[in-house]
Amino acid sequence: VPVESTPGRRTDAVANHARILAAARAVLAERGLDMEVHDVAVRAAVGVGTLYRHFANRDDLVRAVLSQTFEEVLARLRAAAEIADPAAALREIPRALTADQTLFTAMQDPRAARLLGDMKKQVSTSIADEVVGLVAGIVERGIRGGAFRADLDPPATAAAILGSIVLTCEFLGSRRPLSELAALLADLHSAMVCA
Amino acid sequence: VPVESTPGRRTDAVANHARILAAARAVLAERGLDMEVHDVAVRAAVGVGTLYRHFANRDDLVRAVLSQTFEEVLARLRAAAEIADPAAALREIPRALTADQTLFTAMQDPRAARLLGDMKKQVSTSIADEVVGLVAGIVERGIRGGAFRADLDPPATAAAILGSIVLTCEFLGSRRPLSELAALLADLHSAMVCA
Repeated sequence: VPVESTPGRRTDAVANHARILAAARAVLAERGLDMEVHDVAVRAAVGVGTLYRHFANRDDLVRAVLSQTFEEVLARLRAAAEIADPAAALREIPRALTADQTLFTAMQDPRAARLLGDMKKQVSTSIADEVVGLVAGIVERGIRGGAFRADLDPPATAAAILGSIVLTCEFLGSRRPLSELAALLADLHSAMVCA
Repeated sequence: VPVESTPGRRTDAVANHARILAAARAVLAERGLDMEVHDVAVRAAVGVGTLYRHFANRDDLVRAVLSQTFEEVLARLRAAAEIADPAAALREIPRALTADQTLFTAMQDPRAARLLGDMKKQVSTSIADEVVGLVAGIVERGIRGGAFRADLDPPATAAAILGSIVLTCEFLGSRRPLSELAALLADLHSAMVCA
């Protein structure tokens, strides 16, 4: 029987994986892409050897953190789209997209493009389709219910809303709190769509 | 006396440079980044040798076309910002940004990121500052004149407007005419800012 397959070992491995990921996320939020594997191991209270059994290298670890964070942002966007009142649902979109400082800080780094590579490409196609679709769905509900203007084009309005959030946070996020920008954006979007 | 420094030769060289650049732009608009140096030389009616005396390689030529196109977009944005009526000036911004299909097609290509490299980084800093500043200036004038809402935050509104244009055209530009998207965006921006 291989050592790794005993129940206790497996439970430890799962716990270690989660603990390393949580530690990496905290270190990434503080240091950005300059994150050191050694600091992650210290914070997770595991040896560097254990860390390397879970993640082949530093880049792998950064990618795992960003991938987990993307999933959470997506979950928050899906939850926002479920809010019954379309105006309230739309106000939640900038908050959902800006809730995670880790992702935001990492994505600001020019090295992120190289590091993410395929992951970023994947985000800009299938995930972009889903996110634009979620927001377009809110716009359609608002039009049907009469809260939003009837002449809105749902996909174009959704893309405009998402683009306004992305670029405003990229451009001003290093100088102003993301929560303040999210509130300003929610006001602009309301003015843009409300009947 | 070196051959290149005789007046006739120099005039020819300048004319060839401009003709090659114009030809490259036309080929790039048709083929995107798959543009072939041979096709450019044929269209410019110069030998491939002459072309390579002006541009060291294909990438250099693509960069020169994109750089020229960026300058023209910037000139159109500066002209839009000079329009006396702030509402009319703002409506001109999406049109100014989408007027050039060459740039748009090339930027859609994933290879553009690698090819542009430093140029893109430069665009996303100094040029972004200038463009956000131009649009923020229009918003400020609109607030002062009473045409736009007094509670708008000029830089955040400008970034939101520009981001909405960039992402909407990136996301829908391959399926719908850019001119149609520009008109939709101008309507959304008016609703967003008008008092």
